[in-house]
This record gives sequence, structure tokens and C-alpha cells, in this order.
Amino acid sequence: GIIRRAWTMILALFLALESKMTSFAKKAWKTGMDEPKKVIHCLKVGMGLSLVSLFYYTRPLYDGVGGNAMWAVMTVVVVFEYTVGGTLYKGFNRATATLLAGSLGVGVHWLAIKSGNDGEPVILGASLFILASAATFSRFLPEVKSRFDYGVSIFILTFSLVSVSGYRVDKLFDLAQQRLLTIAIGTSMCILISILVFPVWAGNDLHLLITRNLDKLAESVDGCISEYFNEETARGEEEPTCKKSQSYKCVLNSKASEESLANLARWEPGHGRFGFRYPWKQYLKIGTAMRHCACCLEALSGCINSEIQAPDFIKKHLSEGCKKLSSNSTDVLKELSSIIKSMKRSPNIDSLLANMSASVDDLQNTLTSLTNQTLLSPPPPSPVLPGDSPENQSEPTHESMVDVPLMGVLPVVTIASLLIEIASRIEDVTDTVD
Amino acid sequence: GIIRRAWTMILALFLALESKMTSFAKKAWKTGMDEPKKVIHCLKVGMGLSLVSLFYYTRPLYDGVGGNAMWAVMTVVVVFEYTVGGTLYKGFNRATATLLAGSLGVGVHWLAIKSGNDGEPVILGASLFILASAATFSRFLPEVKSRFDYGVSIFILTFSLVSVSGYRVDKLFDLAQQRLLTIAIGTSMCILISILVFPVWAGNDLHLLITRNLDKLAESVDGCISEYFNEETARGEEEPTCKKSQSYKCVLNSKASEESLANLARWEPGHGRFGFRYPWKQYLKIGTAMRHCACCLEALSGCINSEIQAPDFIKKHLSEGCKKLSSNSTDVLKELSSIIKSMKRSPNIDSLLANMSASVDDLQNTLTSLTNQTLLSPPPPSPVLPGDSPENQSEPTHESMVDVPLMGVLPVVTIASLLIEIASRIEDVTDTVD
Repeated sequence: GIIRRAWTMILALFLALESKMTSFAKKAWKTGMDEPKKVIHCLKVGMGLSLVSLFYYTRPLYDGVGGNAMWAVMTVVVVFEYTVGGTLYKGFNRATATLLAGSLGVGVHWLAIKSGNDGEPVILGASLFILASAATFSRFLPEVKSRFDYGVSIFILTFSLVSVSGYRVDKLFDLAQQRLLTIAIGTSMCILISILVFPVWAGNDLHLLITRNLDKLAESVDGCISEYFNEETARGEEEPTCKKSQSYKCVLNSKASEESLANLARWEPGHGRFGFRYPWKQYLKIGTAMRHCACCLEALSGCINSEIQAPDFIKKHLSEGCKKLSSNSTDVLKELSSIIKSMKRSPNIDSLLANMSASVDDLQNTLTSLTNQTLLSPPPPSPVLPGDSPENQSEPTHESMVDVPLMGVLPVVTIASLLIEIASRIEDVTDTVD
Repeated sequence: GIIRRAWTMILALFLALESKMTSFAKKAWKTGMDEPKKVIHCLKVGMGLSLVSLFYYTRPLYDGVGGNAMWAVMTVVVVFEYTVGGTLYKGFNRATATLLAGSLGVGVHWLAIKSGNDGEPVILGASLFILASAATFSRFLPEVKSRFDYGVSIFILTFSLVSVSGYRVDKLFDLAQQRLLTIAIGTSMCILISILVFPVWAGNDLHLLITRNLDKLAESVDGCISEYFNEETARGEEEPTCKKSQSYKCVLNSKASEESLANLARWEPGHGRFGFRYPWKQYLKIGTAMRHCACCLEALSGCINSEIQAPDFIKKHLSEGCKKLSSNSTDVLKELSSIIKSMKRSPNIDSLLANMSASVDDLQNTLTSLTNQTLLSPPPPSPVLPGDSPENQSEPTHESMVDVPLMGVLPVVTIASLLIEIASRIEDVTDTVD
């Protein structure tokens, strides 16, 4: 009885664990297949650690750094980052902060010894308290946070190690020197491996992210409009456009990764087509302009999915203008993306911009002419209108026929003017790209 | 000559440095004044470090942990975070990962010794390479990243330390035990200090952030609309509303901080009015719904600042409806914020929601009646229209009087329908709050 129940429970637990493990493994496999660069990074970390542990295994090297080789191992574990920029940032911060804090620690230690036996713990404790508090506070300042966050934490660490162990260990200078040497070994190894073996440049990643986001934006401008105006004609094919029209959401959410990449890219030396001191901040500006666009698209897709739907004949009337504008906008966005990709000014962009503003004007004219055709003259006796209007309008207070159009026109007009707004924001993006 | 020039250069450099330092100090002072909690955190870190260095200074305690007290110091430096959740997260990760990696390392070491002198470095090296690569890879998976990122890095660190130093140090068990003990001391000290001395709860911060964002959203809905419709009446007072109407941007940008706070809040025990396993994910959903609203506001403010402006008489006509809707929306948002603040269901919210949807209907009716009054009958001979319209319309292709209105109405209509859209999204927010 009890044994059998316990057995089934254990079995069920085991099965649940197994299914969880397999789903986890599948996810991991998928991640690895999608981005082989990440797998390579893992192998690089393994390689770096194995290399650095050689210091331990081979006796001559081991004797050189005097048993403190584990600092080198630690450095490799902590400093090795996915991107070259990240590794350089951490390596530079770690080395500088260790040097700074080490020399400061030795200085404070010297001061403490001078002040006699009683004063020693007081001075050491007070300096630790004050420096640790001040350094912790500096991490809250955005300038320090974005560039030296890791360095400050290493500064506190090293200073407290030196000042605390200084009380015991007499060979303080030796310790500081060895720590610096091992950290230098670990850092340079990380930097060499990350630059020489399949480097992942943060700057390049940022570049790719921006161009990919521009493409996505283009895709979803196109997708949204064609989804709206072709709704009835192609129900079956809607799935892919629906997915396309949602891709602007990636653009909305990529702020954090853009910023961290731009932060890391600053640390990188020139590589590929990017020089040192390449203006990475421009990419952030382009990103901001794109998010503006994406916000408008978000509002647009809200209108598309809203309950009040325009009658078909009005939709048809505006369909051509909207589609033209959207395809022109898409062209501009795609051209921008290819400009950024090739990093060359394109001769086409001006004519494409002119096309876009021409179709903005066309759409505005169409909207104006809509007034004359459908609002002033009573609507044409199309079979769609009478059956369609009462459902769509929630509370028909005015029962005359001419009411319906404006309420019906509302969403289409909103969409059209949002498109116009998007077009003007795309111009902003263009300005930023230059 | 040269000496004087050098002297002036040094002086200029010194002055430049001084002005930079003072501006930095001012910024730091401002940060400290604005958020005294941060200053207290710094003092807490200093306190923790001083306490832990007591282990070094007092001989009996020092002998107890056998010279490895610096692990405790390191733990305090690395584990102490601003929020209680952060400290718990890091402390738990560090302790668990050390235990796991330590026992695994000892196991691998035992296996290596069994395999004889030749196999030892091979087994140690291979296991280090494989485990480090696998662990690094697991950091790319979002589930691991959000909860155990720090733990994985400590796992690699400890494992490599144990397996590497195991080759040399014979008292491996002692080392592992001491490392665990000192980490336990450091971690428990951090956790005690961060919980007992002026605790900063990530959950509480998240709660405040969400309510503050709701208030900001309410503020800027109100600010945008009143800015648009009162533009002419109160030029002098515009400054504050302008600032108010921009505060939705904070809402758009707070995604990252919301997510990290929610992540940390999961680690916290029950505190204040929040139980353990409080549904923090709900806050993220509210945040997402708010960002939807803020997106619409962004599009709205784009329309407000667009070049095409509606003629005044149409603005006036719609002004009342829009203002009423915006004030009703603001009321709903404020009520939601106070519901979240007090964590009680409010009886008012239903009536406020009803008000809001009533004014949505009103606005829709006003829009419909606008058709009859201004578009069908020629516009009233107001003094504003004739002088205003030709400027505002870029290319007046149709010269008849009746054209102007629809083009002029366009922005107002767009704004009104965006307001309606915002109202429906506020309803989404309301649903999420429940």
C-alpha cells in the first residue's frame, strides 16, 4: 500500500522532472542553434580558464607568481564578457581600480603604522568606512554608473582587502604587486582571446540592431496598412501580415539593449568599418526617433483593431492613398536601413523623401475631396452602407443619413493622419541618420 | 616666457579641474538631498565592512576562521545591494553556488586522484573546460539569467578555484569548509543589516513606481489637453503644463527598472502590506498597460504640435467634450493610483468608469453633430476662419469654402479619437488592476 504509493509518487516526480529537463534542453538547443556566436563565446570562456589554470599546473610559472595564481583565475571568470567592449570595460576597470585602491591602501597602512599601535585599528577602520561609503555613493551617480560601476566595486574590494590584510600580512608590497601581476595576466588573456578568437563587437551588434529595427519598422508600417485595407479580401493569408505588423514592438522594447551596447561600444578600439571614437551616440538618437515612430504605429494598430469600423466604400476611397503613402514610407525606411548598412549617403533618399511627401499631399487632397463627394452630397446608394452603419455606431442619436459618414470616416481619417504623422517622424529619423 | 606659459597652462588646467569637481560635487550633493535613502545605504555598506573587518582585528574570531576572513570581506562588498531583494538574491545565489561548486569540485578532485598521476591534470582541465562552457551558456537562457545569473558566475568561480587549487593545497576539505563558513558569515551579516537598518524593499519601490507612474499619466493626459485647448488664453502659464504634459515619457522609459524591481521583489520575504509570494507580475502587467496608454499620448502630443492647426471655432466646439473626457480619464487614473496605494477595492471606480464612457459617447455625438453644423451648412461667418484657413492648409487645391473644415477638423478629430482610444486603454489598465 504505502510503498506502492510512495513508488508512484517518486515515479511521477521523476517523470515531471524529466519532462522539465527535456523542455529546458530543447530551449537551450534552440538558443544554441539560433545564435552560434553564443556557443562560441562559451567555448572561449572555457579556453580562457583552461589556459589560465596552466599557471597552476606548470611549476615554473607557478613559482613566478608565488601561489597567488588564483587571482588570475578569478579575473578570467569575472572579466570575460560576451562582447569585446564588455571585456575591455571590465578589464580596464579592474586593473585601474586595483592599482588605485592598492596604492591608497598601502598609503593608509603606512599612515596607520606611523600613528602607533593604538591609532592603527582606528585609522584603518575609519578610512575603510569613509572610503567604502563614498565609493558606494558614487555608484548612484549616472555618469559613474554607466562607465565605472564595476571599477568602483573592485576599488572597494581591493581597498578593504589591502587595508584589512595589511594588519596581519607583513609582506604587503609583495601581496599588492602579485595581485596586480596576476590581474594583469588574467585581463590581458581575456582581452587577447576575446579580440582574436571570433570577436563579438558591441559596436557591430549595435549597428546590426539598429538596421534590423529599421527593417522591422518598415515591415510593420506596411503590414498594418495592408492588414487594415485588405481585411476582407484575404482572410486566409492574414497570419503572416499579422505577425509582421506586430514587429514594431521589438523596436519599442529595445531601448535598454541599445543603451548598454552603446555604452560598451565606447570602450572598443576601431574595428571593421568603425573607427575609434565612432559617434555611437548617434545610434541612440536614431533609436529614439524610431521609438517615436513605433509609438505612432502602436496607436495606429489600436485604431485598426478598434470597434468602430468605417464603412467599406470610404475605406476603398482612401485605400489607394494610404497604401501609396505606406509603401513610400516603407521605401524610405528600407533605404535608410541600407544607408546605415553601407554607411554611404545614397542618392535615392532625396527622391524617395520627395515621393513620400508627395503622397502625403495626395492623401490630404483625397481627404479633402472626400468632404465633397460623400459628406455634402448624400452618400451613394451602395448596398454596404445601410446594413453596416447601425451596428457600428453605438448610439445613433441623429437618425439622418448624413451623420453616418463622419462617424464612419473617423477611424480611417485617424489612421490617415497618423500615417502622415509617421511620415513626418520618418523624416526626423532621416535627419538623424545624416 | 616658457615658464610663465607653462604656469598659466597649469593654472588653467587646475581651474578647469576645480570647476568640474565642484559641478560634480553639486550633482552628488543634489542626489544625496533628493534621496536620503541612498546616503543611508552607503553608510550601511560602510558599517557592514567595518563589522566584518572586526573578524580580522579581534584575535579569537580570527583564529576561528583560520586566516580566510578575507572571503567574508569580499562577500560583504559583492553581496550588499541597494534593496533587500537584491541582497537576498545575491546572498542566496552566492551561498548555494559555492556549496554546489565546492562539492562538485571536491568530487572531481577525488576522481582525478583515483585516476593516477597522469590522468589528474587531464581530468581536472577537461572538467573545468566543460563545466565552465556549459555554465556560461546557461547564462544566455532568460530563465537562468533573470534568477540565477550571479549564482552561475560564482559557480564557475568556485569550481575553478577548488579544482585548480586542489592540485596544490592538500587540505582541500578545510579550504572548502572555511570558504563556506566565511561566506555564510558575510552573507548573513549583509542580510541582517539590510533588513534591520532602514530596509529598502524592492517590492515597495515597485509599488511606489507604479502608483507614481499612474499619477504622471493622469497628469499628462490633463496637461496635453489643456495645453492644446487653452493655448491662446494662457501663454504665460504654459511652462508648468508643458512640463506636466511631458511626464508620460517617464512611463514609457520605466520598463527596465520595473522588470528588475519585480525580479528582486520575488526574493523578498513578506514585509509591510505585502505577503510572501505576492503577485508581483501583476505590476508588470499594469506597467505594460500603462505604456500602451503612454504610447497613445505620445501620438497625441505629436498631433498637438503638428503644423496643421484646426481653426479656432472648431476647436472651441470640441473643446468642452475633450476637456470633459480628459478630466474624467484623469479621475479614473487617479482613482486607480489610490486603489493601488491603499490596496483596497474602491466603490467609486465603477461610477468614474461610467462617467468616462458617458463622456466618450458625448464626444462622439459632438463629433457627429459637427457634421451637421459646420460641414453641411456653410461655416458661420466667424472672423477667425477666413484669415486662418489659407495659412494652415498647405496646398488649397479646392477653393470652395466648404473644403476647409474637414482638413481643419482633421487634427482635432484625430485628437478626439486618440482620447477615446486612450480611454479604452485606461479601461484595460483598470481590468489589470483588478
